Amino acid sequence: MSSASVRIAVDCMGGDHGLSVTIPAVVLFARQYPDTHFLLAGNAEAIAQALATEGVQAASWYEILPASEVILMDDTVEVALRRKKNSSMRVAIQAVKDGRADACVSAGNTGALMAVSRYVLKTLDGIDRPAISTSIPNVKGGATTVLDLGANVDCTADHLLQFAIMGTALVAALDQRRQPTVGLLNIGEEVIKGNEVVKQAAELLRNSGLNFYGNVEGDDICKGTVDVIVCDGFVGNVVLKSIEGVARMVASMMRAEFTRDIFSMGAGIIARPVLNRFRDKVDNRRYNGAALLGLRGIVVKSHGSADAYAFGHALQRTREAVQNGLLAGTTQAIGHLRERMQAATVQPSDKTPA
Amino acid sequence: MSSASVRIAVDCMGGDHGLSVTIPAVVLFARQYPDTHFLLAGNAEAIAQALATEGVQAASWYEILPASEVILMDDTVEVALRRKKNSSMRVAIQAVKDGRADACVSAGNTGALMAVSRYVLKTLDGIDRPAISTSIPNVKGGATTVLDLGANVDCTADHLLQFAIMGTALVAALDQRRQPTVGLLNIGEEVIKGNEVVKQAAELLRNSGLNFYGNVEGDDICKGTVDVIVCDGFVGNVVLKSIEGVARMVASMMRAEFTRDIFSMGAGIIARPVLNRFRDKVDNRRYNGAALLGLRGIVVKSHGSADAYAFGHALQRTREAVQNGLLAGTTQAIGHLRERMQAATVQPSDKTPA
Repeated sequence: MSSASVRIAVDCMGGDHGLSVTIPAVVLFARQYPDTHFLLAGNAEAIAQALATEGVQAASWYEILPASEVILMDDTVEVALRRKKNSSMRVAIQAVKDGRADACVSAGNTGALMAVSRYVLKTLDGIDRPAISTSIPNVKGGATTVLDLGANVDCTADHLLQFAIMGTALVAALDQRRQPTVGLLNIGEEVIKGNEVVKQAAELLRNSGLNFYGNVEGDDICKGTVDVIVCDGFVGNVVLKSIEGVARMVASMMRAEFTRDIFSMGAGIIARPVLNRFRDKVDNRRYNGAALLGLRGIVVKSHGSADAYAFGHALQRTREAVQNGLLAGTTQAIGHLRERMQAATVQPSDKTPA
Repeated sequence: MSSASVRIAVDCMGGDHGLSVTIPAVVLFARQYPDTHFLLAGNAEAIAQALATEGVQAASWYEILPASEVILMDDTVEVALRRKKNSSMRVAIQAVKDGRADACVSAGNTGALMAVSRYVLKTLDGIDRPAISTSIPNVKGGATTVLDLGANVDCTADHLLQFAIMGTALVAALDQRRQPTVGLLNIGEEVIKGNEVVKQAAELLRNSGLNFYGNVEGDDICKGTVDVIVCDGFVGNVVLKSIEGVARMVASMMRAEFTRDIFSMGAGIIARPVLNRFRDKVDNRRYNGAALLGLRGIVVKSHGSADAYAFGHALQRTREAVQNGLLAGTTQAIGHLRERMQAATVQPSDKTPA
């Protein structure tokens, strides 16, 4: 199927579960979207075997990209970059670089994925540092896109501006929104409002031409106050994990209450359809698939512990990002901003007294 | 009742609801704990009226501290400090300074409360900056103490160490734990593990004599991995508000599902006792009362939007902090650490080659 509309390279060996998750997810996805072409990177024999287990024989919708090594979840960036040059992760990313794939998906270790992607693909013009972004469900029934989630620990105001551009392009592509609103994560009423970097970033954002809403606070993530929230990678990472932690706690407390005694169990059985609907709504597997932004190619990171259902959602996001022209959108947005900023820099010099 | 075991000054006018929340909470508390002596700061007539509404006449368990001004929720620190020198908040704090009260509680604006407390009470020896701390429920059924929550935006490693000392003393006093474990909030597997300040803080904590567990991540807050988690005020504030936001979203989604149709409503009625138990467990009103730490006096901040039930919990925490010797405990902990650090500084110079 050479006229495939989307070609996705998959790091089949990555993540906590490797082939036992990636292959079933890919096979299911290929059945749902027969116009997707898959490039499966990893141990060729093991992949063929896993495909056979799923009832798949040789078929035109996939090809195998042999890779002799696997980057482990606790491998350092150095090991990933220098020692394992034939890893399934690297081979999948290389397929994007070579134009054989439109995008790549991996459930492998985030640090390694970012480093290898950056090394192989390079960043887009105008982007100093790539960022990691994900969507967090909000009370409005949509999702809030948050970045950075840990690729950049110490950020300048200009980096936060770049995150805003990349986040805007991502939401424009994935959610088909024309002018997504952007919020700057800050603290509220407390003693000192925000640190210096955040104050400067607000200034930059106000003059950026982006749809800048202003400062937002932690609770605005789930309120869905804006489409995109930018923050440095330290804050973003801690916030994301805190939110996941609360969600898990609430689910576990709920289970505990509904299994506490005979009466509660009975109530649980009666309320099950309602509870299941609720569970589906807060199921973060539906939001699996963090985008690595700012690179010359689309790379999506699945949760390391993702199951096939969650990995399928990462594939889904990848497909949408490609179909909706994420890369072109980001490049264009950066271009617009550059023109705007050049125009802005010319003006004051005109007014410089001779 | 001059032999009262705990004397609490209350800023009766503070918060979103002022007297209509503070007085009912105080009256109920005084009935439950008749050995508490209250100093009620605010508009004397209005307080007397509010007490009368609760069926309280002149009684020995309280006295009124007249204050002509009220610090509003959006007053700046400057207004609070310079313009409103006879505010109910300031009068309550002054009672602690003068030794008339053992502690003070306010639901007023956090920035003002911190600034006025610091100005009137001063910080303890060895503490550069006071911090704000609260408890967040965890899956173990206890609560994790987190600080700082917004008093200090840009922190040094030494500040984080001071937070750890203050948090340890707080948990030792409130939860009667001898050697609470301390975690340093950091990011995990991602590209760069932690920023420079956090790395240095880990080094200081390792040599502090505190029960340092090591780095923790966002999800460890609700996991209850450690008793105390330290972070800078920007991160702490964002995390706290994010967590509150998720909790509210989950509650609202649950309500929506249980009121969606006739069947769901029926299920909700049957499951109500279970759902109520669950709601009580995650009810953050039970954790109301953030401690301002590092001051020469105990100051507790109630949520501005607290109702009487929540405000009562803040009074409860205040009483426990006083009874369990929070101030002496903190002072002692700082003393120990100083000795230890002096000893540590002496050693290397002994080994200096001549």
